[in-house]
Amino acid sequence: MLGASHTRSTRGRGPGDVTRKDPIPQTADVSEQETADRVAAAMTAQDRAIREAGIRLLDIGPGRARTALTVTESHVNGHGIVHGGYLFFLADAAFSFACNSHGVSTVAAGGDIAFLRAARLGDELVAEARETALSGRSGIYDVTVTSAGDEVVAEFRGRSRAVPNLPPPY
Amino acid sequence: MLGASHTRSTRGRGPGDVTRKDPIPQTADVSEQETADRVAAAMTAQDRAIREAGIRLLDIGPGRARTALTVTESHVNGHGIVHGGYLFFLADAAFSFACNSHGVSTVAAGGDIAFLRAARLGDELVAEARETALSGRSGIYDVTVTSAGDEVVAEFRGRSRAVPNLPPPY
Amino acid sequence: MLGASHTRSTRGRGPGDVTRKDPIPQTADVSEQETADRVAAAMTAQDRAIREAGIRLLDIGPGRARTALTVTESHVNGHGIVHGGYLFFLADAAFSFACNSHGVSTVAAGGDIAFLRAARLGDELVAEARETALSGRSGIYDVTVTSAGDEVVAEFRGRSRAVPNLPPPY
Amino acid sequence: MLGASHTRSTRGRGPGDVTRKDPIPQTADVSEQETADRVAAAMTAQDRAIREAGIRLLDIGPGRARTALTVTESHVNGHGIVHGGYLFFLADAAFSFACNSHGVSTVAAGGDIAFLRAARLGDELVAEARETALSGRSGIYDVTVTSAGDEVVAEFRGRSRAVPNLPPPY
Repeated sequence: MLGASHTRSTRGRGPGDVTRKDPIPQTADVSEQETADRVAAAMTAQDRAIREAGIRLLDIGPGRARTALTVTESHVNGHGIVHGGYLFFLADAAFSFACNSHGVSTVAAGGDIAFLRAARLGDELVAEARETALSGRSGIYDVTVTSAGDEVVAEFRGRSRAVPNLPPPY
Repeated sequence: MLGASHTRSTRGRGPGDVTRKDPIPQTADVSEQETADRVAAAMTAQDRAIREAGIRLLDIGPGRARTALTVTESHVNGHGIVHGGYLFFLADAAFSFACNSHGVSTVAAGGDIAFLRAARLGDELVAEARETALSGRSGIYDVTVTSAGDEVVAEFRGRSRAVPNLPPPY
Repeated sequence: MLGASHTRSTRGRGPGDVTRKDPIPQTADVSEQETADRVAAAMTAQDRAIREAGIRLLDIGPGRARTALTVTESHVNGHGIVHGGYLFFLADAAFSFACNSHGVSTVAAGGDIAFLRAARLGDELVAEARETALSGRSGIYDVTVTSAGDEVVAEFRGRSRAVPNLPPPY
Repeated sequence: MLGASHTRSTRGRGPGDVTRKDPIPQTADVSEQETADRVAAAMTAQDRAIREAGIRLLDIGPGRARTALTVTESHVNGHGIVHGGYLFFLADAAFSFACNSHGVSTVAAGGDIAFLRAARLGDELVAEARETALSGRSGIYDVTVTSAGDEVVAEFRGRSRAVPNLPPPY
């Protein structure tokens, strides 16, 4: 197993923590939330594919993000059920925003999705990504995809890998 | 763990096996390949989303299928790299054809994908799905996504669940 | 994907919820916690292998459980690092207690583990399992394995399948 | 996804390939098989835990390995069914030998196991690991666990990470 020398649990860390280290942001000291916002702006401006797929970024913070999708005819199969591919895409997009939110370029090494309930034409889906663990350059992010009424449609777990020698994601 | 009473290894089973049980198909005895072909025809006719995403079915047989995608601007991020969502969708589509190919309605319970190499604008991607194991109503399907030159872009493993009380997939 | 008709998010549900539905247990109405306790007693009494491996049940509740392992020479490789097999076993044991805690026999369909940090000879490891989602007979349980100082050693995600026609697990 | 610059498919590569590059090994030119054998000798000599668990190495080659386990009372639960933890351990051991077989220290980043059929007291289990894909320092290894009669008990997929700056595994 990995001999990473530092691992921190990030469970339960959320937007409320954002200003903890920097309650009054200084000019030369960009806060964690500002970094996340800059990353979001840069990533969404550059990415036509996410937009064309109908995926929207709802909000972002350090180590977390939420994306949304309104299910149309373009996302369903012949039985009116959303393709697993689009559920993965929606969750993966939230994961991607969350793992890049700290301002270090980070790629997806892989991910697993469990399909728990069918989503259908007209459903409003939301994917909520949170940082579960970081260890060295590796990270684990969990994403829950829900439909209206807070029913869980899918559970996704993404594996990330930071690439600090790439330009920052903004 | 599952107390399934019968499990068969299907590793290495391929299109050459198709006519094994039925070398001379009879009128009332649809061969395994004919069943797979009927499933493919019904699934592709009904599915506008796969078509809109640019995914094509190349071929199908009992327990296997191949899909293809030509990477366009609609599939890439700001750096010209294919979204993991579309790699998953391409592999998941091959998986879906393969696990329904026996003529019993089968759904995806989940899947894992490992991203091994970036695919880019203009790449011709092929996903090849094969049946790895069946146990009762559960199945494991492995899908390799390659680009030109046979470089492996991603490895996908899908978990299927047969639903015999649904109408057949054709 | 699964066409399960009911899925409930169980995120954040914890021991505090145990008596919610049954604040004053009646004679004929075994509470959720009592069921979990009976399951734990029956499972630990019958299971010599878990005991021989050095795994102990710390506590259990509806949908959750914690197990512990003191790392000895029997668990490490030549470099004094705990085998992934024992980290999986520890997490899988917590998962097994948690998914059976409701009193319905439930088996593991599979699981994924990410190794985030090396655990070593002498470490006191704790695995904490919680129910993440239930959908029909399928469930997702997340288990975090930590060592002293609350460092995350591994993140495990188990996939369960209820088998109501088996005798109850107690 | 990973921007790895070289990925090679290793599917179908087997022991027959061993001497391909070095049909007549020279004194100063250790063949791939010799490297694998040295790794196996060093790893088994140092590892008391695998031995104590009852796991034996059957054979090894470049990118592959087979391990075996005779199921005893120490491996089963109260119903006489092998714990998932030992199935994982058996598969993980084969994976570990296979991914270190090239002579570069390689650790497990994680793994997924699907439990397909119950294994029982007295069963002779064999885990066969093969290299599925390599990309930069990352690798994917698939391991099939079978019992007598070649029935598939479990399918495991391991994710490896080479650590070239560690001493070699022999």
